[in-house]
Amino acid sequence: MQAMTHEELIAFLNTEFPQVADDFELLRLTSEGVEVKLRVADRHLRPGGTVSGPSMFALADVAIYLAILARIGPVALAVTTGASIDFLRKPAAGVDLIGVARILKLGRVLAVGDVLLYAEGNADPVARASMTYSIPPGR
Amino acid sequence: MQAMTHEELIAFLNTEFPQVADDFELLRLTSEGVEVKLRVADRHLRPGGTVSGPSMFALADVAIYLAILARIGPVALAVTTGASIDFLRKPAAGVDLIGVARILKLGRVLAVGDVLLYAEGNADPVARASMTYSIPPGR
Amino acid sequence: MQAMTHEELIAFLNTEFPQVADDFELLRLTSEGVEVKLRVADRHLRPGGTVSGPSMFALADVAIYLAILARIGPVALAVTTGASIDFLRKPAAGVDLIGVARILKLGRVLAVGDVLLYAEGNADPVARASMTYSIPPGR
Amino acid sequence: MQAMTHEELIAFLNTEFPQVADDFELLRLTSEGVEVKLRVADRHLRPGGTVSGPSMFALADVAIYLAILARIGPVALAVTTGASIDFLRKPAAGVDLIGVARILKLGRVLAVGDVLLYAEGNADPVARASMTYSIPPGR
Repeated sequence: MQAMTHEELIAFLNTEFPQVADDFELLRLTSEGVEVKLRVADRHLRPGGTVSGPSMFALADVAIYLAILARIGPVALAVTTGASIDFLRKPAAGVDLIGVARILKLGRVLAVGDVLLYAEGNADPVARASMTYSIPPGR
Repeated sequence: MQAMTHEELIAFLNTEFPQVADDFELLRLTSEGVEVKLRVADRHLRPGGTVSGPSMFALADVAIYLAILARIGPVALAVTTGASIDFLRKPAAGVDLIGVARILKLGRVLAVGDVLLYAEGNADPVARASMTYSIPPGR
Repeated sequence: MQAMTHEELIAFLNTEFPQVADDFELLRLTSEGVEVKLRVADRHLRPGGTVSGPSMFALADVAIYLAILARIGPVALAVTTGASIDFLRKPAAGVDLIGVARILKLGRVLAVGDVLLYAEGNADPVARASMTYSIPPGR
Repeated sequence: MQAMTHEELIAFLNTEFPQVADDFELLRLTSEGVEVKLRVADRHLRPGGTVSGPSMFALADVAIYLAILARIGPVALAVTTGASIDFLRKPAAGVDLIGVARILKLGRVLAVGDVLLYAEGNADPVARASMTYSIPPGR
């Protein structure tokens, strides 16, 4: 069912998205999707030490994207066409965030997944997101 | 953890939403949320026999709403403030739809849940939705 | 710029969506999109006389769909793939709703539009929605 | 109608969000909302030179947030609770992005706005977003 291994996904991320690859750590591949960590650094924070909305958006996007690639293989051109995100709780300061993503649809032209984001060590999600990706034709 | 029983939720639905109560059947309460069936009738269909978007929206809304009430008790005035929905697959004709809803946040003023909708007997979801509800003050 | 006239759009709606065509009235075509009225009847109401969420969703969907058809011509198979909706105010009881829809993107495989819904005679919108449609290949 | 001037909004942004204030330029206040520029730099780009999704999300969030502050005054604690975004076109490389935001609702506990993002000098929007903010009590 998997089109890419853990190692291949990491290599793909490093090659195609070198600007942000250091921010993320692919924790594991599951039968449903992936778990990805955002290594929270100062540049991800808002005043008060909470992780910024755009940083949570970025984690959600990377997690669902990697979950899709794990199933369809390396398609650098798959693009996000739509997203919705709910911010549920303020993440605790000083801890990394974990995104648990799953694939809901893998179609010919569209793929859809969703993700729950957690502050490491806390069972209540800090955010929920769903994203749609357009798959380039002829892959 | 539950503020209302299965029977109390059904009675609430019948009393507060008599126009639509017959459309829905509360299948079960779980620790995470609820499962609700939409009894698909002609008025829910589009040409070709597929369930209409507004009917799926209605099932998603009722399922998450009941999941919230099960936890906070009867609050007829809780109102939907926002929703996002992804239509994933055309539901098979002639079968009921099942919504599996869970609560993601129960705050002082806002509650958030999400739901997967399935055509009965099929493991692939036909839609995904998340909804936010405003909780009236002073409950 | 228009691929269908006012009359052709009305005929298309009557033919393809006979179940709901009576609910809606196409008020006008504009250079940006369309204005569509939901003729509010008892079946669209919730207790208290307010228009239900699914009815507002239906108006948003029809308005954006007609705005797309006005530009690309009759494509009965274009399907809604995603939607987000914000409910802003409770509509006044006893008045119709007007949806003012505009097209934001008409691509090869996806079209996107948004809409503001108003209670007739009131300048403050009661809801906002955006929707994405998948365009069948080979049209 | 305005609770803050152009200068006050800029001072607020510099004081409360020093990490990102340099990225944004408040172009003008209008009766409907604001126009804000994202000064696109290397850190906002993806491979190929296109602006990243999280950077567009950040521009949308800042623009709607400033539009709300302009109307309700400095409330640093207003937090984004939900967002939906549609990516419509790939922005041209090497140009700044402009967000044109408007307020749709200013309630007691929730405010809602939407925004269109443009690549400077191009009339077709590159993205659309709507966002909801929770207003702290007792302001």
